[in-house]
Amino acid sequence: MSINPPQGFLFSSYTAGIKASGKPDLAFVQVPEGASAAAMFTRNQVVAAPVIVGRENMRASGGQINAVIINSGNANCATGKPGLKAAQQVCADLARKLKIKPTAVFPSSTGIIGVPLPVEKISAALPGLIAAAQPGAEALDAFASAILTTDTHKKVASQSIVYGGVEVSVVGVAKGAGMIHPNMATMLVYLFTDVAATPKELQKSLKKAVDLSFNNISIDGDTSTNDTVLLLASGKSGVTVKQLGGEFDKALQKVCRSLAAQIVADGEGVKHVVRLKIEQARTVDQARQIARTIATSPLVKTAWAGADPNWGRILAAIGRSGVTIEQDRISIYLGDQQICRKGGACPFDAVRAHEYMSEPAYEIRIILGAGEANLDFLSCDLTAEYVHINADYST
Amino acid sequence: MSINPPQGFLFSSYTAGIKASGKPDLAFVQVPEGASAAAMFTRNQVVAAPVIVGRENMRASGGQINAVIINSGNANCATGKPGLKAAQQVCADLARKLKIKPTAVFPSSTGIIGVPLPVEKISAALPGLIAAAQPGAEALDAFASAILTTDTHKKVASQSIVYGGVEVSVVGVAKGAGMIHPNMATMLVYLFTDVAATPKELQKSLKKAVDLSFNNISIDGDTSTNDTVLLLASGKSGVTVKQLGGEFDKALQKVCRSLAAQIVADGEGVKHVVRLKIEQARTVDQARQIARTIATSPLVKTAWAGADPNWGRILAAIGRSGVTIEQDRISIYLGDQQICRKGGACPFDAVRAHEYMSEPAYEIRIILGAGEANLDFLSCDLTAEYVHINADYST
Repeated sequence: MSINPPQGFLFSSYTAGIKASGKPDLAFVQVPEGASAAAMFTRNQVVAAPVIVGRENMRASGGQINAVIINSGNANCATGKPGLKAAQQVCADLARKLKIKPTAVFPSSTGIIGVPLPVEKISAALPGLIAAAQPGAEALDAFASAILTTDTHKKVASQSIVYGGVEVSVVGVAKGAGMIHPNMATMLVYLFTDVAATPKELQKSLKKAVDLSFNNISIDGDTSTNDTVLLLASGKSGVTVKQLGGEFDKALQKVCRSLAAQIVADGEGVKHVVRLKIEQARTVDQARQIARTIATSPLVKTAWAGADPNWGRILAAIGRSGVTIEQDRISIYLGDQQICRKGGACPFDAVRAHEYMSEPAYEIRIILGAGEANLDFLSCDLTAEYVHINADYST
Repeated sequence: MSINPPQGFLFSSYTAGIKASGKPDLAFVQVPEGASAAAMFTRNQVVAAPVIVGRENMRASGGQINAVIINSGNANCATGKPGLKAAQQVCADLARKLKIKPTAVFPSSTGIIGVPLPVEKISAALPGLIAAAQPGAEALDAFASAILTTDTHKKVASQSIVYGGVEVSVVGVAKGAGMIHPNMATMLVYLFTDVAATPKELQKSLKKAVDLSFNNISIDGDTSTNDTVLLLASGKSGVTVKQLGGEFDKALQKVCRSLAAQIVADGEGVKHVVRLKIEQARTVDQARQIARTIATSPLVKTAWAGADPNWGRILAAIGRSGVTIEQDRISIYLGDQQICRKGGACPFDAVRAHEYMSEPAYEIRIILGAGEANLDFLSCDLTAEYVHINADYST
C-alpha cells in the first residue's frame, strides 16, 4: 500500500535514549501553518500527565495545534506533580524552539508507569528532532516506528478522496493496545488530513469514527491510562469537509477501522482474530455490552484459543452481560454453520467447526431476536503465550 | 478436622453412569421429618432447568424440603423444554419412591451444557441411592465426592455451637467454580444444620452469609448457569435460631467463608490465592466493585502469576472500575510493605516483594482514603495452565 501523507505536515523521529533497547523513542509532527484539532482520551480515571496536559492545551488553544511530540518507553503516569511539570516542560521547551505557544503543542507518552519522565533527555533531543522533520512517506514511516513499544509491526492506514481534481488525504498511524512488557500499555492513534475543517466539525467526525472502530475492539479488557486519539486537519488541500458531504467521514471511518483491526491482530499472543457480529439487538449500546462481555470472558477466549466451538460459554456470557435477553430467541453461527438454535443445542459438524476456528481470522454471528440494532466487534483469543508475556517478572 | 453432621439428615451417593469416568455422579440427601429451606441462585439470565424447578419447588412448598438430588456430569442447561421436563421427572420419580410431594424435592445438576439429561439412568439408580442413605460422617463424605466434576478435592466445612448442653451443628459441602473441562462450570453449595428455624429466618441468615463469602470471590469472572446455594435446617437439635442470638449467623458465615476459600484455592491452574483487602471505600458495594475489577483484570492476574509487584496495573484497574476515586489518596501494600503511595511510585524492596508474592497465598491491601467501608475479597492468579485446561478441544 502506497501512503500519500496529507499536505502541511512534517514528520520525524529520534533516539533520545528513553528506551533501554536503543530504538527510536521520540516522534514529532509539525504543522507549520497550524491545524484544527480534535481529540479523545481514555475514560480511565487514572490518567497520565500528558493526557491532562493534552486536554488542557486543546481547551486553551481552542483546538489549534502546531506540533505533536510523543515519547515511547515511559508513560509519565502515576508520577504525581513532578510528572505534570515534566509534561508541561516538554511542551514549553518545544514551543520555545518552534516559536509557538506551549498550548499549541500536543504531548503523548507511552511506556512504563510510575517512573519519572527523563525530561533532560527529551529536551536535549529537540534540536535534532526538529531538524529532521520533513514531509513525505519515508518520514511518516519513521514516525510510525518511533511510537511503538511492544507492537510487532507498524500500523498505518490511508484513504484519499478526489474532489474537483484535488486529492484530499486521510492518513492514520497507531500504536497497539496489546501489552507485552509489564507496565506497558496504551493505544495511541494519530490521524492526519489536509481537509479544511473547524475543530468542532472534526470532533463530531472523530467521535463517530471512534465509536465505529476503537470502541468496538477488545484484547484483554484492560484500558490504559494514556489512550489517546488525535485528529489534525491542515486545510492545505483547500477542500472543506462540507464540500465532501459524507465522504470525509467515510474515509476517516475506514482508516480508523483498519487501524483498529491492525491493533487487535497485533495483540499479545493473539492466534485468532474473531469478528463478533451481534445482530437484532435492541440498541447498539446493548449490542456492544453483549459483545464486550463475550470478548472479555476468559472461558470464551480460551475456547477460541483451542478452536473449540463451545457455544455454551458464549450463551452463558450473554446471560450475565446485564442486557435483558430472551434465551429461546438466540441463534449462534460459526461462519455459515449454525451451532446454537433457540438458545439451545442443534446438530452441527464439529470437525468443520473446529477447522473454521483454526483459521487466523473468522466470524461468529450472534442473532438475539430482540430488535434491529447490529454491531461488528473485533476481539481475539487468550493464549498461554499472553500469560507468559504478561507474567514475566519485571522489577 | 472431624465433621459431625447435623441430626435429621441421611446422605448417599451412587454411580449412575452419567460421567464417562465411571466415578459417582449422583448425590442424595434425605430429611425424613422435613427441613426448613432457603436458597440462592445464579444471577445469570441463562439458567439451567434444575434452577428453574428448584426455584419453583421452593415457592410451591413454602420452603419445606424433604430430599435433595444432585447429578454431576450433565448441567441440564440450554436443553429447552425437554430439559425442564427431565428435571421435573427426576423430582417426581424420587417423590413417588419416598412418598412425598414432588415439590418437596430440590434438584441440582452440574456438568456439560446443551446435552440432554439421561433421565432413565437417574431413575434406574434411585432405589440404590435411597437404600444407601444413612447419617454420619462417612455418608456425608461420599456425598461430597459425588457432586464434584473437575475439582481436585472435596470441600467440606463445619462449625458447632453448644447451647444448654446441646450441640447445634452447621455443615457445608461445596463443589468449586473452577472450570476444568470445557462446558463445565458451576458452584454448588449445600448447608445442613439441625437448628430450628423458619424458612424466612434461614433466608435472612443465608443472604448475609453469601454476601460475606461467595459474593466476595472471583476465579475467572465467569458466572455459571447453575450456581446454587441451599440451606436446610432439620430442627432436630431442638434449639432455635432465636435462642442462639447471633451465634447461628456467625457459625454459618464461618462455614461459608471456609468453603469460599477452598473453592478459590481449587480454581483451575491456580498457583496463588490473593486476598484483596479493600479499605476506606465509600461503601461495601463500591469496595466490591473495585475488588471485582482488579480480580478480573487479565493484566493484574497474569502479573500475580509471575509474582510481579506491578502496582501500576492494579491502579489502572481501580481507575476503570466505575467507582469515583481520588488517585492521590490511594496506597497499596503487599503484606506489610508499601508499594504505592499517594497514587504513585514509592521506593520498596522489589526482591522481598517478589518473594512475598511467590507464596501460595498472600494479601494485597488497597487503601482508598474515600470512606469507612472495608471488604475482604478472595481471588487468584491467571496461569498458562488455566489457558491450557480451558482451551482443550472438547467436541
